[in-house]
Amino acid sequence: MAVSRAVRRILRGRSCNVLASLLGHQRFLSTTFKASDLQVELTKDLKSKPDPANLVFGKTFTDHMLTVEWSKEKGWGKPHIKPFQNLSLHPATSALHYSVQLFEGMKAFRGPDKRIRLFRPMLNMERMLRSALRSCLPSFSQAELLECIRQFIHVEQDWVPHSDSASLYIRPTFIGTEPSLGVAISNHALLYVILCPVGPYFATGSFSPVSLLADPCFIRAWIGGVGDYKLGGNYGPTIYVQNAAAKEGCQQVLWLYGEDHQITEVGTMNIFIFWKDHQGDLELVTPPLNGIILPGVIRQSLLELSRKWGEFRVSERIVTMAELIKGLEENRVKEVFGSGTACVVCPVNRILYQGKNYHIPTMENGPVIAKRFLKELTDIQYGRVASDWVLPI
Amino acid sequence: MAVSRAVRRILRGRSCNVLASLLGHQRFLSTTFKASDLQVELTKDLKSKPDPANLVFGKTFTDHMLTVEWSKEKGWGKPHIKPFQNLSLHPATSALHYSVQLFEGMKAFRGPDKRIRLFRPMLNMERMLRSALRSCLPSFSQAELLECIRQFIHVEQDWVPHSDSASLYIRPTFIGTEPSLGVAISNHALLYVILCPVGPYFATGSFSPVSLLADPCFIRAWIGGVGDYKLGGNYGPTIYVQNAAAKEGCQQVLWLYGEDHQITEVGTMNIFIFWKDHQGDLELVTPPLNGIILPGVIRQSLLELSRKWGEFRVSERIVTMAELIKGLEENRVKEVFGSGTACVVCPVNRILYQGKNYHIPTMENGPVIAKRFLKELTDIQYGRVASDWVLPI
Repeated sequence: MAVSRAVRRILRGRSCNVLASLLGHQRFLSTTFKASDLQVELTKDLKSKPDPANLVFGKTFTDHMLTVEWSKEKGWGKPHIKPFQNLSLHPATSALHYSVQLFEGMKAFRGPDKRIRLFRPMLNMERMLRSALRSCLPSFSQAELLECIRQFIHVEQDWVPHSDSASLYIRPTFIGTEPSLGVAISNHALLYVILCPVGPYFATGSFSPVSLLADPCFIRAWIGGVGDYKLGGNYGPTIYVQNAAAKEGCQQVLWLYGEDHQITEVGTMNIFIFWKDHQGDLELVTPPLNGIILPGVIRQSLLELSRKWGEFRVSERIVTMAELIKGLEENRVKEVFGSGTACVVCPVNRILYQGKNYHIPTMENGPVIAKRFLKELTDIQYGRVASDWVLPI
Repeated sequence: MAVSRAVRRILRGRSCNVLASLLGHQRFLSTTFKASDLQVELTKDLKSKPDPANLVFGKTFTDHMLTVEWSKEKGWGKPHIKPFQNLSLHPATSALHYSVQLFEGMKAFRGPDKRIRLFRPMLNMERMLRSALRSCLPSFSQAELLECIRQFIHVEQDWVPHSDSASLYIRPTFIGTEPSLGVAISNHALLYVILCPVGPYFATGSFSPVSLLADPCFIRAWIGGVGDYKLGGNYGPTIYVQNAAAKEGCQQVLWLYGEDHQITEVGTMNIFIFWKDHQGDLELVTPPLNGIILPGVIRQSLLELSRKWGEFRVSERIVTMAELIKGLEENRVKEVFGSGTACVVCPVNRILYQGKNYHIPTMENGPVIAKRFLKELTDIQYGRVASDWVLPI
C-alpha cells in the first residue's frame, strides 16, 4: 500500500529544521519501516464501546495497537497492527532505567459528515523524529509512520466518537529496549501507538477556568537541557509539583524560569497572554522557543491563526511575572490561557505567587480571544470548516 | 525471618534528613512490605557462571530477580524471589510514558575469607526512598528492603565472583506501573532488584585515566530540578552528549553549570580535585550538594575518609573552570578524578574546553591520593580491613 496522496501533500510542507537535523544524523538515514509492509492481526474479542460522556482521560483503550520493532543488527522490522496487549520487556530495558523514551499526543475527530480527520499530524511526526534523534533512537520516515497510523485508525474507526466534542486520542510512543545496564545508545527499540477515546475537556456549555501555583522553587526545564523535546523525563518530576499546587488549592502549575521569574508553561500546556502593552496596543504574547518551551502544535496554530487575522500584534517573547503583575495592576490584562491538544485552549482565572493571589479577569473578558480560538480550531478539527490543516483518514 | 541484627545496627545510623522527609510524607508511612513475607520460587534452569575477566558491564544477569508489587488499593504485596524473567507491562505504563522510574546502584564483594559483604547499603536505601518520594511513589521500610536484598544475594551467592577485583552489581529499580495516560500519581508500582556479575573496572595493574569534553551548551541538571535524585530521566538525555564527547575524541563528559562554568559532575560520577590553593595549602575539593549534584555513596565515603586522615583541607564548595585553569597554569593541580560505584575512583588526564585541550597531571602525580582512596575503600569492600561500613550477607 503506497503512502497516501494526502500524506505526501502534507509532507511537502515539513520544516527545514527537521531536514537539517536529519542530515546531521546520517547514520540513521538509511532505513525506515514501510506502511506497505503492515501486518494486520485482528482480535476476536472486540470490547464494547464506552459512552464518551463518561470517559476519564487515558484509561480506556481500543482493541488493537500498532507496533514496530528496531534493532541495530536488523534495522526496522515490519509494522504490525495486533490485538491490544501487554509489552514483554527485559527487566534491564533502557526505557525503564535511563528513561530512553518519548511520546506524542494527537487526536482524530469525526465530523458531522461522519468522516474522520487528523489535525496537522505531520507536525507531530516531525516533533517525534526530533525527540527520537535527541534520544539516540533510530530515524524513520515521518510519512511512513503517519500512513501506518492512518491505516491503524481506519481499523479502529468505530472507536472515533460520533460527537462534536469527543475524539480519539492517539499516543505514539518510542522506547529504548536495550537489555543492558550500560548508559549507552540503545541497540534495540520499540515504536508503538495506542488509542484512547476521550470525552469533551469542558462540560457542555462551560469553559471552566483554572487556578495556577507559580512557585519559583520548581523549575520544569532549563536552557541546555531537553525541555523542548517530548521526553518522558520532562513529565514524571512534575507530578510532585502538581500535588504541591493541589495542596495550595490550585489546579495546575505555572512554570517559572530564571531569577526574573519568566513565565514559561502551564501544567503540560503552552501559555498565552492577551493584553494591552505599555503603549495601549493590543498584543497576544507567548514565550519564545528558546530551548525551554515545548513547541506545541496548538501553540503554533494559534500563532498562525492570529497572525492571519492581523488584528493585533502577535509576539513570541519573554514575559516575566513582574510584567504580568504590572499589567494586572494597570488593568491591561484581558485574557490568560493555556494551549494544548487536550483542551485546545484553557482559561486561567487566578495565579498564586509568593503567597499572594492574583485574579486574572479572563472570564470577565469573554474570554473573547480564547473562545474565538476554540471555535475556529474545533471547526477545522471536526471538518465544519474546510482547511488544509486536516488529513482525512 | 526477622530483620537481621546487622541491618538494625546500620539503621540506627541513618540520617536525620530521611526521617524529616518521611515525616513530611505521612500518607505513605502506614505500610511497607516485609522480608519475613518473602516468597521464594527457585528456577530449575541454572545458567553457567561467566568468567569475570570477560564480563561487559550490565549485560549478564543472575538466575533470579526480586520483585514487590504495590497498589494504592491493596498496599504492598509480598516480596518474591523468582526466576529472572521479562516484565509484563501495560502499554500505557507510567514508567514508559512519564518516566516514573528510579534506580540504585550498589555492589556485593567476596573477600579472601569467602564471605560476601555489602558496602554502606543503607545509604543506597535512604537515597532510593528519597527518589521514590520525589516521584510520588510509595514509601517502604529501608531496613526491610535491605533485608530482602540480603536474602536475595544469599540465594544468588554463587554469582558473587571469587575475585579481588570483580563483584556483583545490584540494581534496585522502582517504577510506576499505572496503566493510564493521565500525568498523575501512579496508583500501581513495581519495585524490583536484578543482579549482574561485573569484572574489574581497570585492567590488572592499570589505572587508566579518562579524557573529558566540557561543553557548556549541555547542562545535566538545574537548581529547582531533580538532578540530585537518582531518576532515570537524568540519564537518558546524557547519551547524546556522551556521543558528542566521543566524536571529539573524549571518553566522558565534564558537566558544567551556570555562566561561570561551575564544575559539577563527570559522566555518571562525582568529581574531586586535589590541588594547592592560592595560599599554597593542600585542598581536596568537590562540588557541594546544592541540588544539582547526585549525593554519591563513594563521594561521601571519600569525604569522610580524608577528613579522618586530617592531612589537608577537605572542601565541599563550588569550583569553576576558570579556577581549575588558573590552577593548571600555576602548576597547583595535582589530581582530578571521578568517584562512583563502578570504579571507586577514576583518574582524569585531559579536559577539552572551548576548543583547547588542558592536560591534567593526575597520572604524573601518582595519582597518590586517588590510589590511596582506591586501596583503602577496596580493602574495606573486600573485607581485607575491618570496618563498620560493610554489612556481611
